[in-house]
Amino acid sequence: MARLVKNTKKVGTAPGSLIHTGNYKNDVIDITLIEYNKDIYHRKKLNNIEDCFKLRNSDTVKWVNVEGLNDVSIIEKIGKEFKLHPLMLEDILNTSQRPKMDDYDDYIYIVLKMLYYNEKNNEISSEQLSFVYVDNYVFTFQEFGGDVFDGIRERLETAKGNVRKLGADYLIYGLIDAIVDSYFIILEKIGDNTEDIEQELMEDPKKELLQSIYKLKREMIFLNNSIWPLRELVSALARTESSVFDKNTSLYFRDVYDHIIQVIDIIESYRDMVSGMLDTYLSSISNRTNDVMKVLTIFSTMFIPLTFLVGIYGMNFENMPELKWRYGYIVFWLLTVIIIYIMLRYFKRKKWL
Amino acid sequence: MARLVKNTKKVGTAPGSLIHTGNYKNDVIDITLIEYNKDIYHRKKLNNIEDCFKLRNSDTVKWVNVEGLNDVSIIEKIGKEFKLHPLMLEDILNTSQRPKMDDYDDYIYIVLKMLYYNEKNNEISSEQLSFVYVDNYVFTFQEFGGDVFDGIRERLETAKGNVRKLGADYLIYGLIDAIVDSYFIILEKIGDNTEDIEQELMEDPKKELLQSIYKLKREMIFLNNSIWPLRELVSALARTESSVFDKNTSLYFRDVYDHIIQVIDIIESYRDMVSGMLDTYLSSISNRTNDVMKVLTIFSTMFIPLTFLVGIYGMNFENMPELKWRYGYIVFWLLTVIIIYIMLRYFKRKKWL
Amino acid sequence: MARLVKNTKKVGTAPGSLIHTGNYKNDVIDITLIEYNKDIYHRKKLNNIEDCFKLRNSDTVKWVNVEGLNDVSIIEKIGKEFKLHPLMLEDILNTSQRPKMDDYDDYIYIVLKMLYYNEKNNEISSEQLSFVYVDNYVFTFQEFGGDVFDGIRERLETAKGNVRKLGADYLIYGLIDAIVDSYFIILEKIGDNTEDIEQELMEDPKKELLQSIYKLKREMIFLNNSIWPLRELVSALARTESSVFDKNTSLYFRDVYDHIIQVIDIIESYRDMVSGMLDTYLSSISNRTNDVMKVLTIFSTMFIPLTFLVGIYGMNFENMPELKWRYGYIVFWLLTVIIIYIMLRYFKRKKWL
Amino acid sequence: MARLVKNTKKVGTAPGSLIHTGNYKNDVIDITLIEYNKDIYHRKKLNNIEDCFKLRNSDTVKWVNVEGLNDVSIIEKIGKEFKLHPLMLEDILNTSQRPKMDDYDDYIYIVLKMLYYNEKNNEISSEQLSFVYVDNYVFTFQEFGGDVFDGIRERLETAKGNVRKLGADYLIYGLIDAIVDSYFIILEKIGDNTEDIEQELMEDPKKELLQSIYKLKREMIFLNNSIWPLRELVSALARTESSVFDKNTSLYFRDVYDHIIQVIDIIESYRDMVSGMLDTYLSSISNRTNDVMKVLTIFSTMFIPLTFLVGIYGMNFENMPELKWRYGYIVFWLLTVIIIYIMLRYFKRKKWL
Amino acid sequence: MARLVKNTKKVGTAPGSLIHTGNYKNDVIDITLIEYNKDIYHRKKLNNIEDCFKLRNSDTVKWVNVEGLNDVSIIEKIGKEFKLHPLMLEDILNTSQRPKMDDYDDYIYIVLKMLYYNEKNNEISSEQLSFVYVDNYVFTFQEFGGDVFDGIRERLETAKGNVRKLGADYLIYGLIDAIVDSYFIILEKIGDNTEDIEQELMEDPKKELLQSIYKLKREMIFLNNSIWPLRELVSALARTESSVFDKNTSLYFRDVYDHIIQVIDIIESYRDMVSGMLDTYLSSISNRTNDVMKVLTIFSTMFIPLTFLVGIYGMNFENMPELKWRYGYIVFWLLTVIIIYIMLRYFKRKKWL
Repeated sequence: MARLVKNTKKVGTAPGSLIHTGNYKNDVIDITLIEYNKDIYHRKKLNNIEDCFKLRNSDTVKWVNVEGLNDVSIIEKIGKEFKLHPLMLEDILNTSQRPKMDDYDDYIYIVLKMLYYNEKNNEISSEQLSFVYVDNYVFTFQEFGGDVFDGIRERLETAKGNVRKLGADYLIYGLIDAIVDSYFIILEKIGDNTEDIEQELMEDPKKELLQSIYKLKREMIFLNNSIWPLRELVSALARTESSVFDKNTSLYFRDVYDHIIQVIDIIESYRDMVSGMLDTYLSSISNRTNDVMKVLTIFSTMFIPLTFLVGIYGMNFENMPELKWRYGYIVFWLLTVIIIYIMLRYFKRKKWL
Repeated sequence: MARLVKNTKKVGTAPGSLIHTGNYKNDVIDITLIEYNKDIYHRKKLNNIEDCFKLRNSDTVKWVNVEGLNDVSIIEKIGKEFKLHPLMLEDILNTSQRPKMDDYDDYIYIVLKMLYYNEKNNEISSEQLSFVYVDNYVFTFQEFGGDVFDGIRERLETAKGNVRKLGADYLIYGLIDAIVDSYFIILEKIGDNTEDIEQELMEDPKKELLQSIYKLKREMIFLNNSIWPLRELVSALARTESSVFDKNTSLYFRDVYDHIIQVIDIIESYRDMVSGMLDTYLSSISNRTNDVMKVLTIFSTMFIPLTFLVGIYGMNFENMPELKWRYGYIVFWLLTVIIIYIMLRYFKRKKWL
Repeated sequence: MARLVKNTKKVGTAPGSLIHTGNYKNDVIDITLIEYNKDIYHRKKLNNIEDCFKLRNSDTVKWVNVEGLNDVSIIEKIGKEFKLHPLMLEDILNTSQRPKMDDYDDYIYIVLKMLYYNEKNNEISSEQLSFVYVDNYVFTFQEFGGDVFDGIRERLETAKGNVRKLGADYLIYGLIDAIVDSYFIILEKIGDNTEDIEQELMEDPKKELLQSIYKLKREMIFLNNSIWPLRELVSALARTESSVFDKNTSLYFRDVYDHIIQVIDIIESYRDMVSGMLDTYLSSISNRTNDVMKVLTIFSTMFIPLTFLVGIYGMNFENMPELKWRYGYIVFWLLTVIIIYIMLRYFKRKKWL
Repeated sequence: MARLVKNTKKVGTAPGSLIHTGNYKNDVIDITLIEYNKDIYHRKKLNNIEDCFKLRNSDTVKWVNVEGLNDVSIIEKIGKEFKLHPLMLEDILNTSQRPKMDDYDDYIYIVLKMLYYNEKNNEISSEQLSFVYVDNYVFTFQEFGGDVFDGIRERLETAKGNVRKLGADYLIYGLIDAIVDSYFIILEKIGDNTEDIEQELMEDPKKELLQSIYKLKREMIFLNNSIWPLRELVSALARTESSVFDKNTSLYFRDVYDHIIQVIDIIESYRDMVSGMLDTYLSSISNRTNDVMKVLTIFSTMFIPLTFLVGIYGMNFENMPELKWRYGYIVFWLLTVIIIYIMLRYFKRKKWL
Repeated sequence: MARLVKNTKKVGTAPGSLIHTGNYKNDVIDITLIEYNKDIYHRKKLNNIEDCFKLRNSDTVKWVNVEGLNDVSIIEKIGKEFKLHPLMLEDILNTSQRPKMDDYDDYIYIVLKMLYYNEKNNEISSEQLSFVYVDNYVFTFQEFGGDVFDGIRERLETAKGNVRKLGADYLIYGLIDAIVDSYFIILEKIGDNTEDIEQELMEDPKKELLQSIYKLKREMIFLNNSIWPLRELVSALARTESSVFDKNTSLYFRDVYDHIIQVIDIIESYRDMVSGMLDTYLSSISNRTNDVMKVLTIFSTMFIPLTFLVGIYGMNFENMPELKWRYGYIVFWLLTVIIIYIMLRYFKRKKWL
């Protein structure tokens, strides 16, 4: 749960102070520049962030991907070069941002979450991704290495699709689209998980299952929390009248918006199902208690009168004629069988057997 | 549940790439052209989609129905001929669309779900249906053969109703209306189902019933998910100011809108009822446990003191005067009857008998 | 539940086809004309609907009440005479309409539900009522005879209140007001019902009560479904700028609106109460199970050690000194009393007695 | 519950007919006139309502308080003198109004509820209060004597605060403010009640508690129903542009609005708490059943094997060597102690002891 | 709960009367003045509030912090000096205000809650904080000493950040930001608490845990009640067009707004978790009851037939051949073992062992 509250590290500092609040420290911060237009395509690792500033006059699209946030000076240099607002720089470093878009007239800041599904412990982890789109530059800031953009990098290189013809805003669309697409993979995994648990629930509801259901529920809360604000964000992008975006791009963002609505619909359905599972689990416990009770009751009510019977003939009264009868013992067994028969019929009628 | 997430096949590809994401492959793709106006009516199967492009200059309404999406080239050819946006073509092929309408000024794209009720396994299945309305052509794309439009085809042929007098937008209305009408049939089936389950619940709540209720609940979630977005879609159609629609058509769409609201109301009521069933089921288990407990308790509390009694006179104390009494044994039976009588009165007063 | 889905009869027919979808067939269709203005008042039964068309030029208010929908020709004739839209005529005949108002510039169509409370089986039934207000005519279409308008008819005849001075729109207001007032009677009945059930629930919660509660819940769902859309309808009437309505009438509709809001508030409260009853019922079962358990436990734990004790002295060991003691038997009884005393104190402390 | 539906008495009468729908009949109807401006202050009882009409030309504020609604003629006379709308007069007499404000251009009608807490039976009762503000007159209509305005009367007399300087609209504000303030007292009482119940719930959850909780829940529903519409009403007063109100008064109404929001917040919190109590109660029953079960189980499982043991040595087999052992009886006791010891350890490990 | 209703002390007094409604009385009321601009910085304790009025003509920012509200004359003097509205002065003294902003054209009033987490009893307490921003003065009124502003005081003194360059509105932003930041610390504590309870719940759900969960739930209600209205307040600040605020400040308030949304999101998630805990707790009780039942049932059903068996051979029939068999006793033991074996297999198959 601690992950829900992450930025207490900053409490008490001045607003706009650049302090990295994430827990993850990268040894080496990777900076990769991809420069392209319709005709050219370059990709290189940068040692200094300043190296990319020299291209400001070129009309190519510059995508600068920074992996690792623990070197505050990189963000400071970018902020100085492009005259970015200190609150925005602070937001890049604060890794517990809610997805949002801030439109600062000359540049745009977008922050959202990449989600990963860890197969080993069936957990979802998240990584914050910030976009700064300024002056034909698209800066992306990741907390650590590894992302869902390999498909886009390949398309840029091989020039498949529209991606190189249409400018920097189309790149941003492509990146956000890739992130939203990756959500579907996570949903598929959760769907499989849900199906497994449901299967088990129907067949053999063990006590451990409750924890799985509960965990699933928490994953759902986490997912919902991460994705819900994205709705507003992409809706804002689709409706934006910011001068930095091409008019046609909004058509693409509308498409992404449709996908997010679909993701939210699916999560909503999963939540309904999970709460249904809890009901099923509870009623399966009740059912089992009922079964246990029945076994106990059948045995007890069958043998208790019999035990009374044998008790009678274990009494030591001097004057008990039955004891001296010749067939007394056989009559006793007949009685026993009759009592058992009556009992069984009674339970049959009650539908307990 | 896997059906909730269907399009992971496309993840990582460029937006606008034409990839068919459905699971169903048709061996032969049926293309049927129905051409009509007030006076004429033609219906023929096409071998090549290009055959219908020749009619572009005629002022008749052209309804081209494509059954099967796995031949991507058909969609490509249509897109080329009518200069359709690649994102729209992609949407036709992606069979996990949320119902929506996209208005591209010169043409309109509508996507929604046809629902079928499978009597055999009491399951609802869905098929995506895309409309493209461009230039007096109405293209409909179905995932596989079989639909709910036979009534309309017949009316077109026999010229009953307004359908042939009023243009292509009236055709679209007619098709959507037929789909919405078919929802009522599904609701009726679910209603019957619900009634059956409710009946059983009242009479003899078996353990299997819970799974039926749970299944019903999931069907409801599925239905709601499929139909709810339709509300927005038809409401948009009723309010649209798109030049491709005749002003009077909106009146008809308002009528469809009323029907959808009704469908949603009914689903809402069913959901309330299903959740009521779960409560009833749970309390019926509790009730049964209570009944089982009562039987056990009545038997135990009746016989336990008696068993104690017979135990006493089974003791071997040398000095137990009762054992030597002449009527000791008879007195013992009297005592037994008295204890049973007291117990029965006690249970009567407790209203357990 | 079947009542929730009523119009599958029409599925597959052309929109605008006149087919009566109700189940009720009237042998004779009653048509009553009431013609009035400030000075005059006529009331007569019509044999042919055409008889009332002759009065079109008179400036009196004409209220034509049609009881029974199974003669489609009547509606056709009215539609032809006043040039009414076919969709509207269809709506009159389709008895599963959601309450709504359609404003067709020259005339207005209103549809809503009259509700009746059947004392015998404690059930609510509904009847659809359509209003068509055109050209000083108010047509009302009822499914079958009997309504809640006797008060109005009397006032029209005796000219009490404003009803004859103010035109046809005031008549419509009066009729709708009468319907909404009749809802209060139904609510009162349900209130009495609720109170009875609650009383029983507190005193002696029997198993049958659950079905009563459940039925009440379903009645609530039904009521809510019937009345909720009325809110929109009357709100639309209060805000309407339709030329057919006098400006002052909206003040009256605002008053009806207040009443509907009150009805909805009351239903909401009842729903809260009913769900509270379910909780109470469930916890009363739990309570009873607990009571049964206590009785069982008190008896068992009291007699089990005693039974053990008598068992000991029923053993046949040769060497058991107690058996030969002179006061052994008396000591045994003392022990028994002491054990019972300890047990009773223990249960007292546990507050089980 | 009957109190939720009060006005069936009027059903079927003409709208605007003056019929008193309350159950309370006052023997004598008190009419009190308070006339004041900055300088003067008069207070007198009126025998006839007409007596106050003579002051229409004076520029003083006239507050006419009518206690008792069963003399319809008083309302009729006021209606005639000030030309008030019949629907409004009807509303004054109908004591089941929802709080609302109606702005009739020249005069304003406000209706709301005064709530009283009856200490004896811990019940909340309500009284309808109507305001008519017309032409420097403020008429207040109460169902019966006794109100929450003594503070205001005193301030008017002693001229404390602004109350006499600022006109009639400030008086209305003062009265509404007094009513809203009185809600806090009721909330405080309910808060005490809630705390008591919660305390008991934690310490000793008796069966009767459920009824207290349930009653509390119903009080909450009642309170919410009475106060929620007030929100709209006061919000309308704060935003009103009615010419009868001074611009500065809206600032005061904003203040009242803040208080109402606070009241609603508190009720919401109480409702959350009450539903939490129901959960706690239910789980405390479950807990108790569990405890009872444990006692039963511990006793049974401890003594059942022992009873079996004594049974063995009560058997009459001729050939049972143990019975003849010298220390057989002592060995039996040892066995008994060992079995008890093992059982106790087992229960300890299970944490049942 | 009593804390939810605090201001009944004022009920019945005139609106605008200055009465301190808090429970806390400060012996000495601390008044601290911090005066600063870009260049200078003074901080001093004031004995009389009038001392700070002399600086009205200076263009420095004056932050006057008043700790303690029980000396009403201080507020009166400020009100007189700056001509503040009496309702506003009343609001400062009424310590049960809902967070809000009132814009009185020339000055602005803001009221919100500082929250503290008391480690000792794990409770959250709140303190009301009022801001009055008038004429380059920022007055802050606290109920008692101690606040969350030490960071800001330090930054003012050492001139770190923008705080001294940007005017008084930036100071207000800084103070509100500090308060919102402090909420995260409380959330972190609650998060730890939640995690602990969850851990215990999984491992060993004791009865006391329910009270912890319930307390947590109440803390959540309290937090939600305190923070939710802040959303509106800061949103109003971010959108305000009040002349007293600099245009750029709204950018900062948007940042605070993002933080509050995050706080509300987290609280929402915690509430979901807490309600999940209640479910888990309830099902863990059910599970335990089921376990107890199983132990009882296993023991009873195993020994009851055995006890019957030993009873048989304890009977005193004269004619019982088994008793005289040579190996009768050994056969009895074999039978016993077989019965136990069958029982164990039965329980194994039922998965109870």
